[in-house]
Amino acid sequence: MTSTEYAFLKGHGTENDFVLLPDLDGSIHGDLSADRVRALCDRRAGIGGDGVLRVLRHQGDDAEWFMDYRNSDGSIAEMCGNGVRVFARYLIDTGLAATPIRVATRAGVKTVTGTNDLTVDMGAPTVLAPTQISIAHHFWQATNIDMGNPHAVAFVDHLDEAGPLLEEPIYDRDTYPNGVNVEFVERRGERHVAMRVHERGSGETRSCGTGACAVMVASALDDGRGPGETYLVDLPGGRLTVEWTLDDRILMTGPAVLVAEGTTTL
Amino acid sequence: MTSTEYAFLKGHGTENDFVLLPDLDGSIHGDLSADRVRALCDRRAGIGGDGVLRVLRHQGDDAEWFMDYRNSDGSIAEMCGNGVRVFARYLIDTGLAATPIRVATRAGVKTVTGTNDLTVDMGAPTVLAPTQISIAHHFWQATNIDMGNPHAVAFVDHLDEAGPLLEEPIYDRDTYPNGVNVEFVERRGERHVAMRVHERGSGETRSCGTGACAVMVASALDDGRGPGETYLVDLPGGRLTVEWTLDDRILMTGPAVLVAEGTTTL
Repeated sequence: MTSTEYAFLKGHGTENDFVLLPDLDGSIHGDLSADRVRALCDRRAGIGGDGVLRVLRHQGDDAEWFMDYRNSDGSIAEMCGNGVRVFARYLIDTGLAATPIRVATRAGVKTVTGTNDLTVDMGAPTVLAPTQISIAHHFWQATNIDMGNPHAVAFVDHLDEAGPLLEEPIYDRDTYPNGVNVEFVERRGERHVAMRVHERGSGETRSCGTGACAVMVASALDDGRGPGETYLVDLPGGRLTVEWTLDDRILMTGPAVLVAEGTTTL
Repeated sequence: MTSTEYAFLKGHGTENDFVLLPDLDGSIHGDLSADRVRALCDRRAGIGGDGVLRVLRHQGDDAEWFMDYRNSDGSIAEMCGNGVRVFARYLIDTGLAATPIRVATRAGVKTVTGTNDLTVDMGAPTVLAPTQISIAHHFWQATNIDMGNPHAVAFVDHLDEAGPLLEEPIYDRDTYPNGVNVEFVERRGERHVAMRVHERGSGETRSCGTGACAVMVASALDDGRGPGETYLVDLPGGRLTVEWTLDDRILMTGPAVLVAEGTTTL
């Protein structure tokens, strides 16, 4: 490796995985091109990840850190609930910060608390009018939840009812003009559900933080409950604990793990 | 990262990618469990790769190095033509060895030559009786080539004729009792072909070294040629150059790149 080398780390939260680029004063990566993001996230020719988390110090009064999050296709993204935990894990493990950590994102400042599992305040949910989704001539009623991004949550008897989820479910384009994340939910017990998710633009994924939050809210409402409740949400990539607080905020708690660190020429 | 850390590198040859574990005297990884291999190769929770290349010094007279190659599912594999180039790239870049490098593998000693692109002697091809393959009621005549592992090579007008290749092509179980790697080949010009490959047990992949060698032999024979010829073989993950020598050996030449190095707790 004779080209210029940059520091990186790799980590994941419930198998939503990221390449972290420490760039505290912004001097290393400049404008961080979409090409470089794609090269880093390439799962064969690169390191591989669902996105890049660039770690920058923040200039504002309300947060000391800025999470510059990019999707694996190189596009700029606002926020990622699994990503911000992994971002905080890096700050904690390196001693750069201790919880509570206030992280500026393009969707506002997010506060991370906890020690082993980490908790992120994901803000308030918005419950909208019920809708429908469809796959291969099957229809499901769906709860329409906005967590800053749109979700359609459908309850099923078994998660395999949704089939292989190779294609995007059919949704109401008037309700979701910019597409929607679709969650299928199976009951596992009292305040305990399991889910699969089809993320718009990504297909079925191992985990979706905002999806888990939307699923908790839809499940609590379906159970005749509301704020002041906590649910376990099992995803293909792991388990998240989601609390709906009495002041109408969603606190999502889950693992955040760094598995490798080093240098790359990409 | 507070657990025990091990050195690793990540690299690829025509997008066939590997986690390298330097373990020169065998003291670091002992018997290297299948669980650890799976954890390292996991593309979400781990580093990600098609396999692990453990780098060991060899005790024999005929080679100084041993490539302990494992598939991503943890199973032991004999050889990998793309892998042995990446293995040699590591030895060259670190100054541990210079070409020609004789690498012991479970399929015998392989000699790697070259400087930028690297060349591996893949041994002699065996041409067997023609066979057939089928996908979704389409049938193709196929050339049956053994490169140490079995191949069925079918010529098509366009590579997309084979469809999405989500399922294993149908083959003759009497001819291939242990399964077969199936290649589809499109002519691109004089001594120049493009291919797709469905690897047994892995599905469609970006590159298969022995597959490219089988495709070269089948193409040369189909052109009325034989030993003493060189073909370009384009794969989804890059280009390989394959020479069939007058003494009936297949020399495969292609890129080998290291993209990252560091430590991991996996």
